[in-house]
Amino acid sequence: MRVKPSGFKKMAEIVHMIDSEVFLAFSTYATIVVLKMMLMSFMTSYFRLTKQVFSNLEDTMLVKTTEDRKKLVRVDPDVERVRRCHLNDLENVVPFVVIGLLYALTGPDLSTALWHFRVFVGSRFIHTVAYVMALPQPTRGLAFGVGLLATFSMAYRVLTTALFL
Amino acid sequence: MRVKPSGFKKMAEIVHMIDSEVFLAFSTYATIVVLKMMLMSFMTSYFRLTKQVFSNLEDTMLVKTTEDRKKLVRVDPDVERVRRCHLNDLENVVPFVVIGLLYALTGPDLSTALWHFRVFVGSRFIHTVAYVMALPQPTRGLAFGVGLLATFSMAYRVLTTALFL
Amino acid sequence: MRVKPSGFKKMAEIVHMIDSEVFLAFSTYATIVVLKMMLMSFMTSYFRLTKQVFSNLEDTMLVKTTEDRKKLVRVDPDVERVRRCHLNDLENVVPFVVIGLLYALTGPDLSTALWHFRVFVGSRFIHTVAYVMALPQPTRGLAFGVGLLATFSMAYRVLTTALFL
Repeated sequence: MRVKPSGFKKMAEIVHMIDSEVFLAFSTYATIVVLKMMLMSFMTSYFRLTKQVFSNLEDTMLVKTTEDRKKLVRVDPDVERVRRCHLNDLENVVPFVVIGLLYALTGPDLSTALWHFRVFVGSRFIHTVAYVMALPQPTRGLAFGVGLLATFSMAYRVLTTALFL
Repeated sequence: MRVKPSGFKKMAEIVHMIDSEVFLAFSTYATIVVLKMMLMSFMTSYFRLTKQVFSNLEDTMLVKTTEDRKKLVRVDPDVERVRRCHLNDLENVVPFVVIGLLYALTGPDLSTALWHFRVFVGSRFIHTVAYVMALPQPTRGLAFGVGLLATFSMAYRVLTTALFL
Repeated sequence: MRVKPSGFKKMAEIVHMIDSEVFLAFSTYATIVVLKMMLMSFMTSYFRLTKQVFSNLEDTMLVKTTEDRKKLVRVDPDVERVRRCHLNDLENVVPFVVIGLLYALTGPDLSTALWHFRVFVGSRFIHTVAYVMALPQPTRGLAFGVGLLATFSMAYRVLTTALFL
């Protein structure tokens, strides 16, 4: 039998930590928005393969082509657009996940918390559609801003509840 | 009335999880440094709008100009500098937040924990000022290194306390 | 004596939260893979200094050279390769850490959890070696895909256990 680490106490405590409704909601929305962010990798791969545009010479082996393979290592505006969208996701989803987790632990009202999570996640889906399809502004700008406001609102609660410098 | 999910047990446990002083301190500093990282988005927008430099053709609608809009889709050294600073933040704040959270859960001494958090967060503010204002090296390099050391020190405690492979 | 924040209750609860074996395992593997990601910064610095390739004019002070310093602010394929590898790490380690943390809190079977963590972390080490050494495809592609699958599998458990919209 495996020896338990010296600090081991009660597994039950942590197993059921996820059972607060606010925390369940956070887990659900954080997972959904992170999965959405991961889909950007697939979208990048899709454009790279269909348009035959690569960042690395070794990747050109993935396509069958008679062209000179070095020519396939190039920059394409559609691929770069998806890459920018992915990076913007990282820049905004990381703050949401960190601040949202801490916010969930401050014990907010369930429906208030749900609306923060829904607004943020919804705004990121709209942002992605607006970015990838190059919809006219201010669609993407508004989606970006609404997501920021949801995160700022949660940060305000974390700092007013937990401030300890 | 909303049906509770089957796994639902005790909300109180999680609501007050945030009540350890070390965890409160982590919550405070993590939120502050994540907010600082988010400010890089505003700084990028500020430079893009004032210098009229854009990544996407649809974004040029945001400025009133008589110039050919396609010319505004270009690369500008000041904008790229802020972008590099933002990416460097992501590369360093994500490790701090992940390792810092785990570190806070190992139950470190409060004042030791506070100094780790303060040194990291302070180093990132100095790093940002040094990067954006292009201060002479090694200001930025030192700020970067000090932040890394704080994170490594916390990682050392996490691994020596919690190692379970 | 320092005044305790009003919400302060029981420190013990959180101090020992880390004592579930699954959570200890998560802490260990998350810390290892985040440290691996941080090593990419050192690899970038190493290539920048040895190849004398910089992004910022002020950084050229770090090397002793008789050349015109402005010429050292340039793009180098080896440095860009390491940078892409670092960014790919961010894009994949962030989802692992977020979803892995929530997964650990759903109380999975210990050996199932361990294998998820090991497969993911192993896949990222292989990915890094394959990327930096430009190994023939599909080495890097497979490593990337295996890591994604581990994260998706954990996300599936989080959503089926904790779904709360």
